[in-house]
Amino acid sequence: MKRSPPQTLTQAHLPDAARLAKKVVARCRELAAFSEDADSLRRTFLSPPMRDVHRAMASWVKPLGAAVRIDAAGNFRALCPHDRRAAPRLLIGSHLDTVPNAGVFDGMLGVVLAVALLEGSQGGKDLPFAIEIIGFSEEEGVRFGTPFIGSRALVGRVEDKLLDVKDSSGASVREAIERFDLNPAEMHDAVVPDNTCAYLEFHIEQGPVLEKLGRPLAAVEAIAGQTRQEFTFVGRSNHAGTTPMNQRFDAVAGAAEWITTVERVANSVNGLVATVGLIQSKPGAVNVIAGEVRASLDVRHHDDGVRARTVQELVAQAGQIAERRSLAVRYTTNLDQPAVPMDSYLVAEIERSIREIGCDPHRMVSGAGHDAMILAERVPTAMVFLRTPGGISHDPAESVLNEDVAKAIECGLHLLQQLASSSKFLSRTRRE
Amino acid sequence: MKRSPPQTLTQAHLPDAARLAKKVVARCRELAAFSEDADSLRRTFLSPPMRDVHRAMASWVKPLGAAVRIDAAGNFRALCPHDRRAAPRLLIGSHLDTVPNAGVFDGMLGVVLAVALLEGSQGGKDLPFAIEIIGFSEEEGVRFGTPFIGSRALVGRVEDKLLDVKDSSGASVREAIERFDLNPAEMHDAVVPDNTCAYLEFHIEQGPVLEKLGRPLAAVEAIAGQTRQEFTFVGRSNHAGTTPMNQRFDAVAGAAEWITTVERVANSVNGLVATVGLIQSKPGAVNVIAGEVRASLDVRHHDDGVRARTVQELVAQAGQIAERRSLAVRYTTNLDQPAVPMDSYLVAEIERSIREIGCDPHRMVSGAGHDAMILAERVPTAMVFLRTPGGISHDPAESVLNEDVAKAIECGLHLLQQLASSSKFLSRTRRE
Repeated sequence: MKRSPPQTLTQAHLPDAARLAKKVVARCRELAAFSEDADSLRRTFLSPPMRDVHRAMASWVKPLGAAVRIDAAGNFRALCPHDRRAAPRLLIGSHLDTVPNAGVFDGMLGVVLAVALLEGSQGGKDLPFAIEIIGFSEEEGVRFGTPFIGSRALVGRVEDKLLDVKDSSGASVREAIERFDLNPAEMHDAVVPDNTCAYLEFHIEQGPVLEKLGRPLAAVEAIAGQTRQEFTFVGRSNHAGTTPMNQRFDAVAGAAEWITTVERVANSVNGLVATVGLIQSKPGAVNVIAGEVRASLDVRHHDDGVRARTVQELVAQAGQIAERRSLAVRYTTNLDQPAVPMDSYLVAEIERSIREIGCDPHRMVSGAGHDAMILAERVPTAMVFLRTPGGISHDPAESVLNEDVAKAIECGLHLLQQLASSSKFLSRTRRE
Repeated sequence: MKRSPPQTLTQAHLPDAARLAKKVVARCRELAAFSEDADSLRRTFLSPPMRDVHRAMASWVKPLGAAVRIDAAGNFRALCPHDRRAAPRLLIGSHLDTVPNAGVFDGMLGVVLAVALLEGSQGGKDLPFAIEIIGFSEEEGVRFGTPFIGSRALVGRVEDKLLDVKDSSGASVREAIERFDLNPAEMHDAVVPDNTCAYLEFHIEQGPVLEKLGRPLAAVEAIAGQTRQEFTFVGRSNHAGTTPMNQRFDAVAGAAEWITTVERVANSVNGLVATVGLIQSKPGAVNVIAGEVRASLDVRHHDDGVRARTVQELVAQAGQIAERRSLAVRYTTNLDQPAVPMDSYLVAEIERSIREIGCDPHRMVSGAGHDAMILAERVPTAMVFLRTPGGISHDPAESVLNEDVAKAIECGLHLLQQLASSSKFLSRTRRE
């Protein structure tokens, strides 16, 4: 094994980021036209419009010398081969699927921005690593109720059980893959090679933090761990007119008291979010005291211990409130997903690159899951967040500021320079 | 116009109330077999099983000399004619329709108990008034979403607008009447005659009050007034993971705070009940902060002023909570029904009769609406409540104690005696 000397891009090589940013935004809008729905954007796993997206992507990366393939999980992969066949591989990407009634930038921006980074670095020819652009086929979990099918393929986690999951029409993941003229038996070819040195993902923040801080970019240091539970408060359904207040077993009143407690507890724990998003009473009539209430709980924090203790506290509070009111309460835990730290070296390098381009870096935890969470199982991974106006996402009103996209491109190009000239990065990632 | 001397039933005439009570309960169960549903009791307005009910009722009252007719609103009417053609008329009854998945006693008990009173007083032959038994065709409002169609006919309030209301199959009230071989044009014949002196209704309490007090019977002094409203709290739907606690506009959290306030305020006002029976969040997903919550409010009290002030307070609280949280709140008032006092003379006579048969009378407000509420518009009206085990009603588990039914029969027979010998009652009700 032989080291090649570190390569660097000088500031003089930095292209016109504003021009590239404009192109990125225009390309996102172009991709958003490929939709399953006539009047809004919906593009689920391997739906027909995904072919159009692949075609457009290919037309943009092929002139840069990239070799394009669609892997067995339907991921778009564009590899710019390196002069040295054994050079390490740097992955940059995000996802190409969307939620129903989606915005234009969630996922797509990260993939299209990767193309811009390739354009801005002359196809990466001078870099000491090969760049592969990934457009993940599935992140949102809309079609099969299971998210991250695309990124799971890259870490070898598309098991038979997952292939058997069916969509609402009764078609399985396996059948969806076959109908897209792909071969599920070739899934192993989707796995990242051993010499993969890093995965970088640019993504809109989808929250209000950066806007509030007045900063365009953040380095994501971790993806928050997440607990999802469903609580059922059981009282006694009774006549709203004939049952005196002191003789009620009112499930709505009990659940309401608990929800105010959830909010109070969440407010008291730094960096924690807790949400009751679903609440529904039964029988749900104006003149009937509800005998049952179903309420969801979503708790997230970057520290799994803090999250576990908070969840324990909220479960205990539900029990105490129910007991005091002679209600019953039961709950099920539907998700208990540990936090995923990003690679600390890459996070620091991202912060540095943000600073180098003249911005105040912000270090933050992602409350949402991302493909980066899956890739991190196998590859040093980090993310860059872009400010999201109004924190609005998963909505046609989702937007980005052109100048923020330009900053993200500058940041990405600077980061490539830094990594290329970092003996630490190159030494630890040379596994060929 | 001539007064006939007051007639009295002596204690010696009191029949075996226990035997009659057993018969009443058996007859209720017999009527409960006539159902639209195979496995549970549902008998809506002029549904086919109502014919079977009318047939059974006729077979019980005809031997007592009663003339049976079904009026144009489908009410069962059995008049025991009086020797004096112009004698005042005393109505006793309740309703024969049911909710879906009903119990055996709600409504039916009052009609069948009226038959027992006729049996226990030898067809009322010695009384100075004629007795008419009424089995109302419609009280629950299930089929047409409009309650009290039967009793409204007796006070001349079945307007064309009501006849045009359609059920879920598209049939109007008018068509339902015609299909039951009745003539809507004869609706005026359903109106109570001017010489009607009183309407008495026996009904299960459908609440836990008498059971808690350990008393079998209550005199109902008023039917509570009622306000029904629907509130909508509007915040901003957002990502449960990416939106920090202090940057949320969470409609569920706002509604929950308000519901705890509704409960606290209701607990502080004597005799008031307030219920949030329906609550539903939108979009209602575990991982989305709800942007909207719909919540119902039902407020009842026998004093319309107290009710109005409480409703005003709860509306103001909703506004204050919403404002503090930067939410919007709107509401609509769907019902604002004044309290209906029962006839104070009759209430006092009922209390007296309960005392005379050796029970502790309880005077209470009905939180539920009843046909008595409608009849009171035109006729001196009062109700007797029977203890309801567990307060359970509108449920197959609805029950009565045989001994309570016996007490109700004793009470009713004694009350007839009292009224027959009361010059005050007879003087004020002689309108012929």
